[in-house]
Amino acid sequence: MKAAFYTGQRTFQLRDIARPDPAADEVEVRVAFNGICGTDLHAYHGAMDGRIGVSRILGHEMSGRIARLGANVTGLAEGQPVVIRPLNSCGACPACTRGLSHICHNLSFLGLDTDGALQEYWSVPAHAVHTLPDGVSLEHAALTEPVAVACHDVRRGRVQPDEDVLIIGGGPIGLLIAMVARAAGANVTLSEVNPARIAIARGLGFATLDPRETDVAAAVMQATGTKGADVVFEVSGTAAGTALMTDAAAARGRIVMVAIHTTRPPVDLFRFFWRELELIGARVYEPQDFDQAIALIASGGIDARTMITDIQPLEDVGRAFAALDDSASGQAMKSLIRVGAPD
Amino acid sequence: MKAAFYTGQRTFQLRDIARPDPAADEVEVRVAFNGICGTDLHAYHGAMDGRIGVSRILGHEMSGRIARLGANVTGLAEGQPVVIRPLNSCGACPACTRGLSHICHNLSFLGLDTDGALQEYWSVPAHAVHTLPDGVSLEHAALTEPVAVACHDVRRGRVQPDEDVLIIGGGPIGLLIAMVARAAGANVTLSEVNPARIAIARGLGFATLDPRETDVAAAVMQATGTKGADVVFEVSGTAAGTALMTDAAAARGRIVMVAIHTTRPPVDLFRFFWRELELIGARVYEPQDFDQAIALIASGGIDARTMITDIQPLEDVGRAFAALDDSASGQAMKSLIRVGAPD
Repeated sequence: MKAAFYTGQRTFQLRDIARPDPAADEVEVRVAFNGICGTDLHAYHGAMDGRIGVSRILGHEMSGRIARLGANVTGLAEGQPVVIRPLNSCGACPACTRGLSHICHNLSFLGLDTDGALQEYWSVPAHAVHTLPDGVSLEHAALTEPVAVACHDVRRGRVQPDEDVLIIGGGPIGLLIAMVARAAGANVTLSEVNPARIAIARGLGFATLDPRETDVAAAVMQATGTKGADVVFEVSGTAAGTALMTDAAAARGRIVMVAIHTTRPPVDLFRFFWRELELIGARVYEPQDFDQAIALIASGGIDARTMITDIQPLEDVGRAFAALDDSASGQAMKSLIRVGAPD
Repeated sequence: MKAAFYTGQRTFQLRDIARPDPAADEVEVRVAFNGICGTDLHAYHGAMDGRIGVSRILGHEMSGRIARLGANVTGLAEGQPVVIRPLNSCGACPACTRGLSHICHNLSFLGLDTDGALQEYWSVPAHAVHTLPDGVSLEHAALTEPVAVACHDVRRGRVQPDEDVLIIGGGPIGLLIAMVARAAGANVTLSEVNPARIAIARGLGFATLDPRETDVAAAVMQATGTKGADVVFEVSGTAAGTALMTDAAAARGRIVMVAIHTTRPPVDLFRFFWRELELIGARVYEPQDFDQAIALIASGGIDARTMITDIQPLEDVGRAFAALDDSASGQAMKSLIRVGAPD
């Protein structure tokens, strides 16, 4: 079977490899589509070579159909359309024993710490499988993993109907958070600097503010009668976003930390005290977030057509990564790789 | 009647002033004891002259008895022992209209923004009065306000029985948080550098760690089987405390921001994401925190004898402030001023 190996220094090699049997507790999935995410691009840059090596099959945002079941697997059937929640936890650490296996101290992320979905057949632990309802296309279902991230973020932020939500950063995850928050009944505003991304957000009916042109915090305060945003999502990973998140929040406002800040930016801790703000970290997802993501994709609550900006065949995986990486215009949202036949 | 005026540049003047009648919605309290707090010392240094002026009667941690009732006041009686929750809110701002009047956008703090309790008779809004149960000494009751701060902090941190709590900073508020958290059933450890304060905390039966001698985060991880602290209270206001708060917290750990950080220290936002931490701002108190504080003082859950390290007469208010300010040893916890006769 064909498999795309990341081989270091922004390169991929397509190889023909043997198709192993699934282990007793595994399910083998015939992969249909696989999306490229920001972490994959980070790996492509070589920034994660120490963790993943230079002979790794990437891919964790995927859809497919069950091909074979391991000997101990029950409750699933060959041919079922599925997506995979790509987490494997240790079951023994202090997070796992307190019901927080998604942030296990020894978490294994399938498709980074193990080989992933950029291969025709992918064997994964049966506990990672979520079946799809009838009528969801496998193309759209490939968005489930990033939508589940957004569902987790919105749930961690306890977004309520009619609340004012500010999302700082309108890339793929920011835009999905906007859709999920709107589905929860919130009034959503996006802060974004990239004109192409602003246009996409406006096309989806979201209010936008450009911090290069507008004092975003002042605009939010004015639009909410000096209240501020009930929930702020910091998705930008910038120092400017970190300043804005506290400036724009309402008294007792919740700020959800979605971005991966690799430096330690200065934070207005006085404002946390003064306005009794909350900062809430959010990482990956729990099973219920996958269930919600699947339901939102099935119902049309997620605009999959807008999110999926191109689909390339597995043979062109290197070109697809390069094109996404070069997309300084910001017009690309989600690139999918067609790994196998969709049905 | 006698009143102590802060007159700028670390000075007080004792003056004889007229005793005004309480307004229709006010209660006049004959003040018994008044505690000196960190904010009062901050004012004493001149750092708040722009807000409070240089002819201001300070004092907001007090106890006394009702002397007279305004014409519209019902449900209270002359002679009742009381404490005062020294907040007056506007009732109209976005915080007030959402039930958060304690963090009113236009909050008036009695004893800073208005004249306070360092006078023989103090007229306050009737809504600020909390009556005391039988058997609580007015001396101990003067601790109610700072204990209410600690009750609010512990409530904001959602401290549960058997949880591991780390308090960074063992001054008066840190020590009161320790007592309230212990009363909530938590396992409490204090991080503190001052030997006198360490001795006081140990004398009260608390575990202590000295960050000059010990890697506190590593010690907490070891003591909790690599879990970390379920709740961390940052009371130090230091950059070191800000680093420790994230390093020592468990997955989904709650960090309560008690300290007033006047600079913007670097914060490990990656850790918030990675371990799904929460940062929770906590400011002053709500009525239920005052009720709980009174109950804890009445039950002995607060060790008032240890907390109150000296009592001075009103005539010596300047000396009391100077002594507390000079207390580099850290042995002084709470200094009370005896304003009037205790009964």
